[in-house]
Formats: sequence, structure tokens, C-alpha cells
Amino acid sequence: MPIVTIQVTREGSVPDRQSVTAEEKAALIKGVSELLLNVLNKPLESTFVVIEEVDTENWGWGGLPALEYRRQLAAKIK
Amino acid sequence: MPIVTIQVTREGSVPDRQSVTAEEKAALIKGVSELLLNVLNKPLESTFVVIEEVDTENWGWGGLPALEYRRQLAAKIK
Amino acid sequence: MPIVTIQVTREGSVPDRQSVTAEEKAALIKGVSELLLNVLNKPLESTFVVIEEVDTENWGWGGLPALEYRRQLAAKIK
Amino acid sequence: MPIVTIQVTREGSVPDRQSVTAEEKAALIKGVSELLLNVLNKPLESTFVVIEEVDTENWGWGGLPALEYRRQLAAKIK
Amino acid sequence: MPIVTIQVTREGSVPDRQSVTAEEKAALIKGVSELLLNVLNKPLESTFVVIEEVDTENWGWGGLPALEYRRQLAAKIK
Amino acid sequence: MPIVTIQVTREGSVPDRQSVTAEEKAALIKGVSELLLNVLNKPLESTFVVIEEVDTENWGWGGLPALEYRRQLAAKIK
Repeated sequence: MPIVTIQVTREGSVPDRQSVTAEEKAALIKGVSELLLNVLNKPLESTFVVIEEVDTENWGWGGLPALEYRRQLAAKIK
Repeated sequence: MPIVTIQVTREGSVPDRQSVTAEEKAALIKGVSELLLNVLNKPLESTFVVIEEVDTENWGWGGLPALEYRRQLAAKIK
Repeated sequence: MPIVTIQVTREGSVPDRQSVTAEEKAALIKGVSELLLNVLNKPLESTFVVIEEVDTENWGWGGLPALEYRRQLAAKIK
Repeated sequence: MPIVTIQVTREGSVPDRQSVTAEEKAALIKGVSELLLNVLNKPLESTFVVIEEVDTENWGWGGLPALEYRRQLAAKIK
Repeated sequence: MPIVTIQVTREGSVPDRQSVTAEEKAALIKGVSELLLNVLNKPLESTFVVIEEVDTENWGWGGLPALEYRRQLAAKIK
Repeated sequence: MPIVTIQVTREGSVPDRQSVTAEEKAALIKGVSELLLNVLNKPLESTFVVIEEVDTENWGWGGLPALEYRRQLAAKIK
């Protein structure tokens, strides 16, 4: 009876997209449910998956909003 | 000081509704707060309730997005 | 397919108990599952309930650990 | 590697605002990340912060939706 | 910067074990982190995974504690 | 009525300690409650804080259990 919660920022996986697509969500749900079947013998029917999309300004990393932290990280690497 | 989090899919409880109504939310809040009072003697004022509505494409069951899983389940029963 | 998470402090509901009993947990599970059936027509079989017991020193209220806040509250009332 | 989740009602901190501002969110992220650095020696880069804004009708307190509970509380104080 | 929370009952995946093993936990962490890399291009280093083991008496399904629900389910199938 | 959840690994902040101390927990509760007062005008009495300590083998980063990831990170830096 596992419950898997996946929190990601609300943004696209490639530059021209603004959000996670329905296909990507279905792939996450399928992949993680099969993982629990393979590793812990949990039947697919007993796993719940909840995907939570979080606006980038609501996500913090390095003491900063996520996008600003990424900008600083990118600048450092150069 | 209990905290109760209720996660449900964002859909109506009857066919002609698209979401949980304010009255239904109030009934959930009242019901669960009274349950904690009756079972564990927690005063109403010390219970917080948070209702999270999750888009159906963000909810997985049986390795599939929720609506697709329900369709398969319904087809099996016939 | 609701998921209900109930967080309570790890302590007894009456003075001579140190924790929530198995009977009380079963009553919480039953009560909240029936509430979702009654209010939102969710079948009992589709509701998951998770009870999380939190040590009192890990719970904060009023800027203080829970037990200390309660002591201050009790002192104020006198 | 701490994760801090901050749940607040979706409303402004002063009467003429309808929501938490980006500046306030940045201040929460900065403040809580520095707190974990100061108290537990966690480097800023290893702390994730997620802010969840909850509609007031989805938040319960005192067995009532939040705004109604506040109204009752305000009426009692008078 | 995804965060994945995996909640499972505290029990073994085969009859002679009482809990999830460290190897199984490592397999869950590896599998879900690679899933987020493959589906959403999230670098391994930016994914946090938290596994929460829940005592079976703290997990409810079908309005009952989990083990009792499983017993009823097993009896029905016979 | 904010709720703040702080998840940290169950380990000491200095080498000779095995866990977060009660004093450190109280400092986290005080600090984060005052932050919400200062940034969002939330009264101390309306903020709940829950600290969750997670065993290091239950925490994943970089596709690995946390301690193994830290070892690899430390080896790379040398």
C-alpha cells in the first residue's frame, strides 16, 4: 500500500515547454509503481502516486528562490 | 494539536460538478475535527485541517493516471 | 482515492497512558474513512489513512516545544 | 540535506494584498535556510524549501473553515 | 530539484523479514532518481528521496487497520 | 495559521553527538515561528512546527543513500 509523492518545479523538461506534460506524468506514475513492484513486491493496484507541481518562486535552494540560485550556480561555473 | 491533511482528486462528488464544494469542505473539516475530539480528547481549537485537491492527471493508481485506471477497472467489471 | 494523514503527538489520551492505543487508531481510521464516504461518496476501499505520531519535543506551538507552551498556557489561565 | 515545507493560507500579509509576495517568499527561504545553518550547521546549498499556499476554504481550524473561525474568534474577543 | 517521498508499511518484502532492508532502500533511491533523470532530465544530484516506514497499525485501508483489511480481503478471495 | 515541517537526518550537528538535541529543536521552533511573525505577521500562537528526523539510510541524494553520497562527494573534492 505504498504512497509516493513526487514534488517537482512547475516547468518544462525542455526549453519550449512551460510545464510537465501528461505523458511525462504518466511515465513517472508507471515507472515508480513498477519500481515498488520490482523492489518490494508491492502489486501495482496497491500503490498511490501523487505529483505536486510547485511554482519556481515557491521553491528555495541555497537560501534563494530556485531560479535565482540556478543563475548564481551557472555564473560560478563559467 | 493534531494536523490532518486530506488529499482528494479535484473533481465533483456528483456527475454535474467539477470540484469539491465549499459545503463539502466545511463538512470534512467539521467531521474530522470532531472525530479527534471524540477519539483522542483533542479540543476543536487545537486541530488544523488542510485539504489538498490534486488534478486527476497528477494522481496515479495501478501504475496509471487515475482516470485511465478507473476506466480499465470499469471495463473489467463488465 | 483519498489519502488522509493524521499527525498527533505521541502521548496518551488519558493521564495513565503514554501513547495512542491500537483501538484509538482503528477508530480514527474507521471514522475518517466513513466521513469521506458520507461527504464525498468515496468508497471505503479507495481511502488510505496514515497516522504519524510525533514526539512532543519535535512539535512546536507558540514558538516553543509543545509541552512548554501548554505549561505557559495553563499558568496564564490560572 | 534538510527539507523545509512551509504551508500558509493564500492571502496577503496586509489588507490590500491578496497573496504572499515574491519578496516575502524570498525572505522566508533565506530566513529558514540561515536558521538551519546557524542551529544545525547545514550548508545553505543542502537545504530545500517548499512553500505551499493553501486556499482559505481548504484550511480548517476549530472545526470550521479558517475565515469563519477567525470571525467567531474576533466576535468573542469583543 | 525534485523531492520524492516514499511511504511504505514497516514490514519485510518476504515472510522471514521484519522490515525493508538497506539494500532495498538503496534500490528504491537509485531507481526513482534515475526515473526523474530519464523522464524529466533532472540531474541525479538535484533529487532528494525520503523513505518513511509506517507501522502497520498506523496504516488504514478500507476503513480498517491495514493487516485486518488484508485478512478480510484474503478471506473474500477464498 | 502556518504549518512548518522540518525534515532532517537523524544525526548530531557535531561529531560526538548522535542526534539533534532538545535545545537545537527548541531553537528551530523558536526561529522559524519568529520568521513567520516577522515576514508575514503571523502571531506565534498560530504557527505549528513539526520536526521529522529521518534515518540516514532512509534519505537519498545523488541516487545513493545519503552517507554514501557524502563519501563520494568528499572523495571527489580531494
